[in-house]
Amino acid sequence: MKDCLFCKIANKEIPAETVYEEDDTLAFLDIAPINPGHTLVIPKEHATNIFDISSESWAAVAETARKIASAVQAATGADGVNVNMNNGEVAGQVIFHPHVHIIPRHQGDGLEHWGKKEYKEDEEKEIAEKIRNSL
Amino acid sequence: MKDCLFCKIANKEIPAETVYEEDDTLAFLDIAPINPGHTLVIPKEHATNIFDISSESWAAVAETARKIASAVQAATGADGVNVNMNNGEVAGQVIFHPHVHIIPRHQGDGLEHWGKKEYKEDEEKEIAEKIRNSL
Repeated sequence: MKDCLFCKIANKEIPAETVYEEDDTLAFLDIAPINPGHTLVIPKEHATNIFDISSESWAAVAETARKIASAVQAATGADGVNVNMNNGEVAGQVIFHPHVHIIPRHQGDGLEHWGKKEYKEDEEKEIAEKIRNSL
Repeated sequence: MKDCLFCKIANKEIPAETVYEEDDTLAFLDIAPINPGHTLVIPKEHATNIFDISSESWAAVAETARKIASAVQAATGADGVNVNMNNGEVAGQVIFHPHVHIIPRHQGDGLEHWGKKEYKEDEEKEIAEKIRNSL
């Protein structure tokens, strides 16, 4: 799509540090990594995020992400890897083309995880019912 | 696998607030949600995480996660959704059976995103080369 940064990277109109390419996906380094080796996996086909990506395009992204996760871990000597996708501005999405973050993790890297909450009485059952009704 | 909590949930040996089920995947509420409606998608086949899950099992999980993301957003009135997978203890993995977190997000929910770093000279090219060589 015109004016989409990741479409331009997919089309090779803008350079990126590409680590892997398939017919329908591309993996390249995030230029501002959470940890060094932080890689992004994108579909070449434009969409906004997980809410509108095609099932086919998403399957290709997922499979590339699986391969990249092991390679990033091996290459960086990481102890683990976060595979994260932010969908919507409030969720931290900045570029509105689907992308999966592969973030290598190391002991003592100081990245904190979100705290957990508790459900109030009946709240869990009610919300589960709403999700089932939204499918 | 014996003594795996999520295998027991998949086998209906332990109850869970299930929202969706397919032949090879299950989606249910996280009992300690980051935000209400926080849902987990698991494969029924045991593995540890993204490093050893089979390609087929992962494809099924990804497709179920895609469907659940939209349903969770709709059901919770969320402004966005994080789709996160923690692989390895250092990455925040607690249950060692693959699971994808679908976390609804709302304006002002106070969840902070990790800060970004900068690469030193040549560091980016060197790490990209290492990842390419690990594939």
